[in-house]
Amino acid sequence: MKDNAILLISCPDRKGLIAAVTDFVFSRGGNIEHADQHVDKDRNIFFMRIEWSLEGFDIPRGEISGCFSRLAEKFDMEWQLHFSREKTNTALFVSGELHCLYDILYRYSEGQFNINIPLIISNHPEAGEVAESFGVDFEFIPVEKENKTEQEELQLQLLKKYEIETVVLARYMQILTGRFVDEYANRIINVHHSFLPAFAGARPYERAFRRGVKVIGATSHYVTEKLDDGPIIEQDVARVSHRDSVREMKRKGQDLEKAVLSRALKWHSDRKILVYGSSEEVKTVVFD
Amino acid sequence: MKDNAILLISCPDRKGLIAAVTDFVFSRGGNIEHADQHVDKDRNIFFMRIEWSLEGFDIPRGEISGCFSRLAEKFDMEWQLHFSREKTNTALFVSGELHCLYDILYRYSEGQFNINIPLIISNHPEAGEVAESFGVDFEFIPVEKENKTEQEELQLQLLKKYEIETVVLARYMQILTGRFVDEYANRIINVHHSFLPAFAGARPYERAFRRGVKVIGATSHYVTEKLDDGPIIEQDVARVSHRDSVREMKRKGQDLEKAVLSRALKWHSDRKILVYGSSEEVKTVVFD
Amino acid sequence: MKDNAILLISCPDRKGLIAAVTDFVFSRGGNIEHADQHVDKDRNIFFMRIEWSLEGFDIPRGEISGCFSRLAEKFDMEWQLHFSREKTNTALFVSGELHCLYDILYRYSEGQFNINIPLIISNHPEAGEVAESFGVDFEFIPVEKENKTEQEELQLQLLKKYEIETVVLARYMQILTGRFVDEYANRIINVHHSFLPAFAGARPYERAFRRGVKVIGATSHYVTEKLDDGPIIEQDVARVSHRDSVREMKRKGQDLEKAVLSRALKWHSDRKILVYGSSEEVKTVVFD
Amino acid sequence: MKDNAILLISCPDRKGLIAAVTDFVFSRGGNIEHADQHVDKDRNIFFMRIEWSLEGFDIPRGEISGCFSRLAEKFDMEWQLHFSREKTNTALFVSGELHCLYDILYRYSEGQFNINIPLIISNHPEAGEVAESFGVDFEFIPVEKENKTEQEELQLQLLKKYEIETVVLARYMQILTGRFVDEYANRIINVHHSFLPAFAGARPYERAFRRGVKVIGATSHYVTEKLDDGPIIEQDVARVSHRDSVREMKRKGQDLEKAVLSRALKWHSDRKILVYGSSEEVKTVVFD
Repeated sequence: MKDNAILLISCPDRKGLIAAVTDFVFSRGGNIEHADQHVDKDRNIFFMRIEWSLEGFDIPRGEISGCFSRLAEKFDMEWQLHFSREKTNTALFVSGELHCLYDILYRYSEGQFNINIPLIISNHPEAGEVAESFGVDFEFIPVEKENKTEQEELQLQLLKKYEIETVVLARYMQILTGRFVDEYANRIINVHHSFLPAFAGARPYERAFRRGVKVIGATSHYVTEKLDDGPIIEQDVARVSHRDSVREMKRKGQDLEKAVLSRALKWHSDRKILVYGSSEEVKTVVFD
Repeated sequence: MKDNAILLISCPDRKGLIAAVTDFVFSRGGNIEHADQHVDKDRNIFFMRIEWSLEGFDIPRGEISGCFSRLAEKFDMEWQLHFSREKTNTALFVSGELHCLYDILYRYSEGQFNINIPLIISNHPEAGEVAESFGVDFEFIPVEKENKTEQEELQLQLLKKYEIETVVLARYMQILTGRFVDEYANRIINVHHSFLPAFAGARPYERAFRRGVKVIGATSHYVTEKLDDGPIIEQDVARVSHRDSVREMKRKGQDLEKAVLSRALKWHSDRKILVYGSSEEVKTVVFD
Repeated sequence: MKDNAILLISCPDRKGLIAAVTDFVFSRGGNIEHADQHVDKDRNIFFMRIEWSLEGFDIPRGEISGCFSRLAEKFDMEWQLHFSREKTNTALFVSGELHCLYDILYRYSEGQFNINIPLIISNHPEAGEVAESFGVDFEFIPVEKENKTEQEELQLQLLKKYEIETVVLARYMQILTGRFVDEYANRIINVHHSFLPAFAGARPYERAFRRGVKVIGATSHYVTEKLDDGPIIEQDVARVSHRDSVREMKRKGQDLEKAVLSRALKWHSDRKILVYGSSEEVKTVVFD
Repeated sequence: MKDNAILLISCPDRKGLIAAVTDFVFSRGGNIEHADQHVDKDRNIFFMRIEWSLEGFDIPRGEISGCFSRLAEKFDMEWQLHFSREKTNTALFVSGELHCLYDILYRYSEGQFNINIPLIISNHPEAGEVAESFGVDFEFIPVEKENKTEQEELQLQLLKKYEIETVVLARYMQILTGRFVDEYANRIINVHHSFLPAFAGARPYERAFRRGVKVIGATSHYVTEKLDDGPIIEQDVARVSHRDSVREMKRKGQDLEKAVLSRALKWHSDRKILVYGSSEEVKTVVFD
């Protein structure tokens, strides 16, 4: 297990940014393992992810933030500092379909993600047994129209109790309120079972079938208040033909859903994603 | 060059259809080379494509229609009879971007399609030289809002003169009127530079870029009166990332446009496509 | 659950085969649900898969074989008769890597395959717990060079005891002897972690990494005596780049392995695969 | 048209490399537009591509090499300096199949590559007309076993006369001698019509057909003395089934060949490819 620091940076583009950041690391003895940059030229925004080994780095872990903030201020940076040894506490939300839940738990058990999963929340009781078999706490919280606010309050309390940083909606078929979404801005990952922006909303496979598309898709994205409109993290597709019924599309689609959700969670937990833009046009930079 | 007959059939599903059709061919000495069936179970429609060698077939070419019509009537079939030696007369329409035109003409010159291309029509003059280098007649017909009706009339006259059966819109950036579309129902193939139904209408790459999608696409479809809403023949996709500008998306997209358009034309000219459904939900069966 | 009969047929190609088979079904009141044909023109072999509803079919289930055999003899057919309600008894063999095992068991629990899985055999003890959680019997049979023959004998006895028809090697890292393979000819499905025929044999990801390929793959195939040389059922690929280490290739490859193995098992258990050819060139027809 | 400088660097990995190179650019007033790095950890080699705007850069174009060489020496770098305004002089070699030639010439005419194409050489006369229509000089140089050495001499003289830097074998069906390859080491791009290392050598589609593969591929690579063994630049694949004859595989494969060859030429001419390794294991880093 590496002992690395990771900086995610975005700021107005100007000369000298890369040199300044790499010099910050190098001049204190850090060995840069990865450095990725990107410039959105339309909006003149600079993005950077830099990861370096803390072995031989002069600044103690606890003081890196303080030291970097001077540089950050000079360049008007928004930034996050992460450490590879700090696993992200992650909760999974799920409803009746368990394929994404299984897939994430299996990958988790194999050590594919840099996360802990202490908690699974569901509005259906079925997932309880799976949770148990992977040794994860399970909370059954049924949600109805009339008790939505209270149940979300309960969910939020549980998230606090378990110190959850990231929420993964592994086919959770409830729309979260603005209040919930705000608490976990850019930290709730959802999977939608269509190729967004096509077929946002309900019953996408049925609508894809009726439209007669020849390719179906799935999309993982951060959740924003507007349904299925958040910044896209990953998409994937599969061919279908006139021979595929809605049921067969769902079966093929489930494999896509698993794939795009697990990739999103991997990149998120490896701190490879930057979200930017205004509410009209929010996008991701994914340094994969 | 094979000497085959091809029947495309659709009718209400019932027992005995396949047996009846295959027996029609076999009992007259025809050797079946391909037979494909499909049933849309929601709507209870049966589809069939059957292709057989005319070598040794008892019924003369000109009388097959008459003979088959008795069977067709019994089963309430809609059907078309084609002969593999009859090449489809095809006209290409193009505007300023020539990549699809080139691609089709090159494949045509290689003999990949079972068609003749006697005519290219464009609202831009640029394609004239390409047309000439492939030995195809070229008509420059500029279209403005105010002269659209007359110019379409002129186009239709040319199509008649050249005995055109199929029209390919190889990136023709004009919307055809209902009158034109009706004349060539299910015989006008268009390519739209997005993954329909996402980004129907104008400037799809710009909109895909702004939405931050991770996969772009292209769609070939038959043209109906409603823009970008006709039955889909083929779709294909390519991955993009935050690094792809609109310009780069266009470049990647052009390769998709060529691919889906040429496949659609190939299947169309090989008589492998059946269109069905009402205006709300029109789809294709593609026996590839 | 449908009550269908399925015929898989191969024979020398000649006129009238499709008509004869469809007439066999139709004239006894069977409703054909699927009929697929293929002709290998190089070798003049005809292949057919026909599936029909037994509802209203005049011949009792137990006598279909007898009736069809007269037709089969006339055309010199090799053929198999299956019934959709008869689930294939399937055993899974696995070693230390459990991703394919999990994937199949989860899909099995969802009802995706028309099979029963009463038995899992492993040369490692790890899979025991997984087997138990899915309610499947588990046999730990360690295999060493010196005890291979006896242990295979033991395996074969277990297969007999559990009335196993199909064996799936879900990343079973032992080479089966000719004796074992002969017993289950065209009924052992293996997954090889490369894009065959590239990188047959040991350590394919390491060799792919060293060769600097830009795409990796996985292959499911029936097992023959010659290692990684059996008829290919399915292949799939994923892009890699210079950034992918061997470890990352393995992780991407595991997803391919799961995909190609589960598709092979699905097609096999749906009776959609025909194997043909001589030892030099054995291939599959997959009517998907 | 940008006025940028591009450095391609490889050297033993050590601390401070990125900081040193970015500082070299920044401290002289250069604005870094792209910076990519990679470390091969097995071999401890560092790779970098850095591209910066010469607008406002203090060092005159002609002196950059001299200035950088001091830094390069210190870190034991192998390096190349390129300028975005210097187009690569490129010759195309072709035999009887012209699809790759057409594809490259069309993309070239659209301005997709940062190259000039002054010369096409062929051992068949067919390509002459195409060359003429794109305004490129054409040399017909038939090659037989007995005149191979002289004809290659003639080719090399033409390459010198036209000041050719890069040679693209756009389906040129002759094996080049070691002498020719040495002259243009890592500057001859070939396309092989298989998914290497599968089906290296002659008639790959026929062999793929006989093996019954379910996916075919194409590979672009730099030419080395050993046939089809050079460092791979790009690969792509397409699905095939038992329905695809060798002829159909060739048709699908031609589209792959065009795709992988044009991508390789684009990356090569954009100076995005680094080749490394010893003769046993030569690979590419492609900064796309």
